[in-house]
Amino acid sequence: MEFVADINIMPMKEILDPQGKAVKLGLHNLGIDQVSDVRIGKHITLRLEATDAVEAESKVKTACEKLLANLIMEEFSFEVRIA
Amino acid sequence: MEFVADINIMPMKEILDPQGKAVKLGLHNLGIDQVSDVRIGKHITLRLEATDAVEAESKVKTACEKLLANLIMEEFSFEVRIA
Repeated sequence: MEFVADINIMPMKEILDPQGKAVKLGLHNLGIDQVSDVRIGKHITLRLEATDAVEAESKVKTACEKLLANLIMEEFSFEVRIA
Repeated sequence: MEFVADINIMPMKEILDPQGKAVKLGLHNLGIDQVSDVRIGKHITLRLEATDAVEAESKVKTACEKLLANLIMEEFSFEVRIA
């Protein structure tokens, strides 16, 4: 069975996000000044084969923990659905 | 009223994604070899003030079109929710 995982990897809340600050400034310069906070991370989609959703989720979790996310500074969340 | 926007900005399907290819290879090396496709983009969360959801959505759309997404190579999608 083929699954698609939608993964979000974001900087932890305590971590400074200079890129987010720069984008916030840019939005204010564009006149969109009601924006109070901007956080920027990665969105990754994975297409993978697995026998069932449980196996797919376990593989995606391993992929995040071992390669996709820097667990010291980032937190990840994901959803798995049938392709 | 305060809203939070969850924005995904991904490379268009036709665009080559060398970063995605590199991550796919990395996952295969980790033994997660059932992954057939990897695409990597940005996930951005915006916190903003707006009178209602319609106004919030229009501001987020403008922010994506004018600053956050490169409309030649990227496509964006977003969801707005009350903070």
